[in-house]
Amino acid sequence: MLTLQLNEFSLEDFLANYWQQKPVLIRQGFPGWQDLISPDELAGLACEPQIESRLICQRAGQWQAQNGPFEQYAHLGERDWTLVVQAVDHWSPEVAALVQAFAFIPQWRFDDVMISYAVPGGGVGPHIDLYDVFICQGSGRRRWRVGERGPHRQFVAHACLLHTDPFEPVIDAELTAGDILYIPPGFPHDGVTLEHSMSFSVGFRSKSARDMVSGLADYLIDHELGTGLIHDPGRPRQPHPGQINASDFGLIRQQMQAVLSDAALMADFTGTMLSVTKCELDLQALEWPLNSAELLSRLQQAALVRTGGLRCLYLQENIAQGICYIDGEKYVFSAGCVPALMNLCDQNRIDAVLLGEALQDMDFVEALLGWVNQGYWYFDE
Amino acid sequence: MLTLQLNEFSLEDFLANYWQQKPVLIRQGFPGWQDLISPDELAGLACEPQIESRLICQRAGQWQAQNGPFEQYAHLGERDWTLVVQAVDHWSPEVAALVQAFAFIPQWRFDDVMISYAVPGGGVGPHIDLYDVFICQGSGRRRWRVGERGPHRQFVAHACLLHTDPFEPVIDAELTAGDILYIPPGFPHDGVTLEHSMSFSVGFRSKSARDMVSGLADYLIDHELGTGLIHDPGRPRQPHPGQINASDFGLIRQQMQAVLSDAALMADFTGTMLSVTKCELDLQALEWPLNSAELLSRLQQAALVRTGGLRCLYLQENIAQGICYIDGEKYVFSAGCVPALMNLCDQNRIDAVLLGEALQDMDFVEALLGWVNQGYWYFDE
Ligand SMILES: O=C(O)CCC(=O)C(=O)O
Ligand SMILES: O=C(O)CCC(=O)C(=O)O
Ligand SMILES: [Co+2]
Ligand SMILES: [Co+2]
Repeated sequence: MLTLQLNEFSLEDFLANYWQQKPVLIRQGFPGWQDLISPDELAGLACEPQIESRLICQRAGQWQAQNGPFEQYAHLGERDWTLVVQAVDHWSPEVAALVQAFAFIPQWRFDDVMISYAVPGGGVGPHIDLYDVFICQGSGRRRWRVGERGPHRQFVAHACLLHTDPFEPVIDAELTAGDILYIPPGFPHDGVTLEHSMSFSVGFRSKSARDMVSGLADYLIDHELGTGLIHDPGRPRQPHPGQINASDFGLIRQQMQAVLSDAALMADFTGTMLSVTKCELDLQALEWPLNSAELLSRLQQAALVRTGGLRCLYLQENIAQGICYIDGEKYVFSAGCVPALMNLCDQNRIDAVLLGEALQDMDFVEALLGWVNQGYWYFDE
Repeated sequence: MLTLQLNEFSLEDFLANYWQQKPVLIRQGFPGWQDLISPDELAGLACEPQIESRLICQRAGQWQAQNGPFEQYAHLGERDWTLVVQAVDHWSPEVAALVQAFAFIPQWRFDDVMISYAVPGGGVGPHIDLYDVFICQGSGRRRWRVGERGPHRQFVAHACLLHTDPFEPVIDAELTAGDILYIPPGFPHDGVTLEHSMSFSVGFRSKSARDMVSGLADYLIDHELGTGLIHDPGRPRQPHPGQINASDFGLIRQQMQAVLSDAALMADFTGTMLSVTKCELDLQALEWPLNSAELLSRLQQAALVRTGGLRCLYLQENIAQGICYIDGEKYVFSAGCVPALMNLCDQNRIDAVLLGEALQDMDFVEALLGWVNQGYWYFDE
């Protein structure tokens, strides 16, 4: 497993002074870096219709951008283009493992690993993101410039390319393999490739209030909750039929407030909503499904690895009740399974030791069997 | 205008002891009742594709139901069928005026006026509603039975017909023209027509928490609100990547709570959401649009009537700021317009006196001109 080396500063220092606050260059965060995927493999992924990708190039100073899937790259030439592929952690176990190096930020904040391959002069152009990103430089060299947070103008440079005006850099550095550039939301940045190069962007995002309220609405509908109507017996005679008076407005707000004040409902909603995957999983269902005896016996020899992009969460709020949330679903097991559930959610790899006494719980084994047979976890052999 | 006569009890008595609590028969609530629409006109409305209607009949003890629009009724015979048309207040000014008689219940609680025409033996069958209804008996006689609130089984008697099991009546009465039966949500009821008869159901509904949360999500999206992301600088190192810890769960809940705690946002959301019409309005835009001088001069001679089904609301919370909500839109006028806005929302009919000094406010006159030219209000001449 890759281990992040912070060298000059500690993780505590990074979290206290940089995370969400200011950009920082971490030289040789991954010493001895080896690319986790080859340019050819990346180009191959960008040919798949279910994978989100973009080709960005500059032709005579004009930005051009095109969404994948792509059929060929031969026409692109030697300069000034880059291929960007989203959520590669869903398709490559090696790339999924990179996320572990950033596990000091909780999983519910994680978005995806985006990878770019660029030829000299290539880059996506100066832009601002809504997310926190660790841009891990792979092979090749790239010059990165990062500006101050501020009221930078944004404009559509091409159909799927939102750019920002030129900015004064506060960081201006050449990155080589193993260097990491951390950029919080709102800081303009621009990376121009000096030689054929790969970048691995580990991105973290939080949801907006709007996303959460939309998600809550869907959650209430899917789970047939919040169906009660306002009950208003004993209402006084209304002198103003067109008015929503203070007491009625209070009833209306109270009805919605009751949903948000329901800690158990909000825990279930939060767990299910935040464990929904960003996009399709690369599930490899077993051709010959196991039965539980076979599962238990194989677990004596091998560990299970979580499929890249699968989200498994638990809440401090209700884990003691044996509750966890996997891929947008709530699961409830007996209290004896709690340590196993925590390991299942905390670790990318689990084995018989980490699952412990949960392997004696038939409900848990049954659920695990379903997950393994469907490919949510696979044996690492 | 029709005036409700409560005879034996006062309106205060009705609101304190019956509204949302128990069913009650109001004998001769509308003495000298005359049908507000003829069976032929009702049958005509049910031929329109934009109007929701149903035909319900019993054939050999089997319930049958069909949604409109209908082309003919000749095949139906002399017995055991009823035609039900929704939201007739949207299409008939006389029916819209009936709602005024129930203006002691605020407009935001109002749903629609549903009208049925039935031949002997006809009825929709025993059922339970989610709304409060005043069933006003028109011409003809109908026997109504109402049971106790309770855990009555509900079942699908036919594709669009949800029935309930037979029940013990607490009210069993024959209604004649002018009688009114009030039924709160949850009380099973069954009306069987004794002779050709018309029923006018003035229905009141409140929204569920689910409807409100869905509406809020749409409101945030339409108005580009709630876009801020969770900001979590200074987070401690997370020992459990799969956990949403208590402090993060707090941040997530707080982000949504901030929306519900924003009184101004919630007032605007409530006003816009609850002023959306139930279904299409019968807007008759003026063929020769007026200019403001013409509008003001015509207002000296004639009153303006609100198109049936149009919802106009204001909140005690923010009316002093000149804010009102019409047909799902927020309007803001100067403080001098407040009395006019209240009349506009409270009254079905407004004239130059009720609009008062707002007619000197050019913004208000401009808005009123737009509403009149589009047909939201029309001159009563
Ligand atoms: O890899 C690139 O060219 C762009 C990376 C980037 O801007 C990001 O990850 O935010
Ligand atoms: O008019 C009818 O036949 C049915 C009326 C009714 O059940 C209601 O308005 O709730
Ligand atoms: Co970026
Ligand atoms: Co009913």
